[in-house]
Amino acid sequence: MHLPQQQLGLRIGTMVTEFTATARAHSNIAFIKYWGNRDSGIRLPANSSLSMNLAALHSTTRVTWSEALAEDRLMINEEPAAPAAFLRVRAHLDTLRAELGSTLRADVSSNNNFPMGAGIASSASAFAALTVAATAALGMGLSARELSALARRGSGSAARSIPAGFVEWRAGSADKESYAESIASPDYWPLEDVIAVISRDHKHVGSTAGHAAADTSILQRVRVETAADRLERAKHAILARDFEGLAPVVEEDSNLMHAVMMTSKPSLFYWLPKSLRIMLAVQEWRRQGVKVCYTLDAGPNVHCICGAEDAAAVAARLKELDSDIEVIRSSVGGGAQLLNASDRSD
Amino acid sequence: MHLPQQQLGLRIGTMVTEFTATARAHSNIAFIKYWGNRDSGIRLPANSSLSMNLAALHSTTRVTWSEALAEDRLMINEEPAAPAAFLRVRAHLDTLRAELGSTLRADVSSNNNFPMGAGIASSASAFAALTVAATAALGMGLSARELSALARRGSGSAARSIPAGFVEWRAGSADKESYAESIASPDYWPLEDVIAVISRDHKHVGSTAGHAAADTSILQRVRVETAADRLERAKHAILARDFEGLAPVVEEDSNLMHAVMMTSKPSLFYWLPKSLRIMLAVQEWRRQGVKVCYTLDAGPNVHCICGAEDAAAVAARLKELDSDIEVIRSSVGGGAQLLNASDRSD
Repeated sequence: MHLPQQQLGLRIGTMVTEFTATARAHSNIAFIKYWGNRDSGIRLPANSSLSMNLAALHSTTRVTWSEALAEDRLMINEEPAAPAAFLRVRAHLDTLRAELGSTLRADVSSNNNFPMGAGIASSASAFAALTVAATAALGMGLSARELSALARRGSGSAARSIPAGFVEWRAGSADKESYAESIASPDYWPLEDVIAVISRDHKHVGSTAGHAAADTSILQRVRVETAADRLERAKHAILARDFEGLAPVVEEDSNLMHAVMMTSKPSLFYWLPKSLRIMLAVQEWRRQGVKVCYTLDAGPNVHCICGAEDAAAVAARLKELDSDIEVIRSSVGGGAQLLNASDRSD
Repeated sequence: MHLPQQQLGLRIGTMVTEFTATARAHSNIAFIKYWGNRDSGIRLPANSSLSMNLAALHSTTRVTWSEALAEDRLMINEEPAAPAAFLRVRAHLDTLRAELGSTLRADVSSNNNFPMGAGIASSASAFAALTVAATAALGMGLSARELSALARRGSGSAARSIPAGFVEWRAGSADKESYAESIASPDYWPLEDVIAVISRDHKHVGSTAGHAAADTSILQRVRVETAADRLERAKHAILARDFEGLAPVVEEDSNLMHAVMMTSKPSLFYWLPKSLRIMLAVQEWRRQGVKVCYTLDAGPNVHCICGAEDAAAVAARLKELDSDIEVIRSSVGGGAQLLNASDRSD
């Protein structure tokens, strides 16, 4: 290999060790929401949550640990990351280094196939893919539970993007106990998420700040205290493939999270007028017999959870409601996966 | 007096006794909401509430108790009342008859100068005026407290339309203890309610049914438990004429009531997309320094509570936001008043 003298720098005459791996993880949509932490330092959540992975939305992340790097580097969607994103990823790399006993720096390149910061959890898929790639590159044979718990440290909901299909994240009361597991495979029940994308703007208050504000709402305690009951109802409905059982609890849980947000101090409104218009329309469509219910994350986009047989009709009705609404459809997604791994010396 | 024979009917040769009075009462807008009852039979509320009377919105009600009537009669805005309204008024007349020891039937004519059932409490002003007129016609010299407690039996928030200005309704734990009193006169603080009327449609779920649903929300208990604290904060802000202190607690309390509504089973959404648009705009205007905050009752209209000096600007901004929005402005109103009374035998 011939490199111009100046590019070799300090590496002249040394062996440069690099470890690379690439992983892909899907986004997920929560039916029972994660909002607020009992320990924000390690993202130990206030309550257990339940979600469905989204096949159509994923992050693909390549991590190269290298002796040649003096500091971590991060590219997102082929561009150098903004400082806030870089600092959050570096903090997660610090967590991984501490866990894995490594001092190497990493070159990270992550690509999402969907807009970031618009209420579709890019951090979930990104931190899940990052965690899988980063640990695989170092040849650590971690279990799915260990990966889920580690991914959680980077972004809480990333814990749920490790297992496949329908996923339960048990809150736990200690770092290693707080991980997600699959309750049903992607093909167990053909649901679809028909996402009404209302805004691609970056949300005004990010999830991390929002989680920190959760306890300023007088409603957070009762939301947390009753979450286990809703989770059991939702889980039971999924396992029974009972859409009529699932719909009201999914909408109630979404409304509860947004009620907490709106009554936080200061109040956080993630709904836009168009979000509410779609929510009211979805309720009306369900009264008309369409298998559909809504749920919203920390953003204005409305996730219309449908029976697969009704997904095309729901997408068409959304367009009819407002032709400006961009619609993304997704079936149930699999778990995080390693795309390739190599370690090399050169 | 000469009447054709057939019109005299059974009254031939008898003395017909009639007692008539007319009263006027104002609507009110709650800063701390009444939602849910601890005893729905006598409308004993779950929590104390706080409101401001609205000078521009009133009901004028004439009651004639007459021996000549075989049953009660009700005209609203010069038309025979719909059955639901008639039954509710007759039930209140039954309450008054029992309290006053009378068996006479009443001819009631009530006129509102504002749309009914659009989230502007027509029942509050109507039942307050009805109670004052009905008792005055019989010459009962009831105290303001007694009138407030009686009006409450017809419509909870009517209790608050008896006293003047800024009004506190203490929940109490028994019928006679649950009445409203003025905490400050109408001229104590020149606030205005700039009402964005979004819909004149009759609301899909009336307040009485909504109150009954309150306990089906897991949020109602904490809303009720913490209402006294918010009431104290709002009262303190009013007495100190402190708009910056009043605004966040008024919006929080409105958001809490609507959170309870949305999470009732089945869920009740009174907000429309346009309501939310105005709420978000109001928050933005306040950040820009305008003295304004929002509150919504059981309907889509947005009450923009303003410092009087900012009311014209708020009205103009609402029109700018959407020229279809009808704007009603109201200063702080007085208490219920008797317009005239007479008793006669003919």
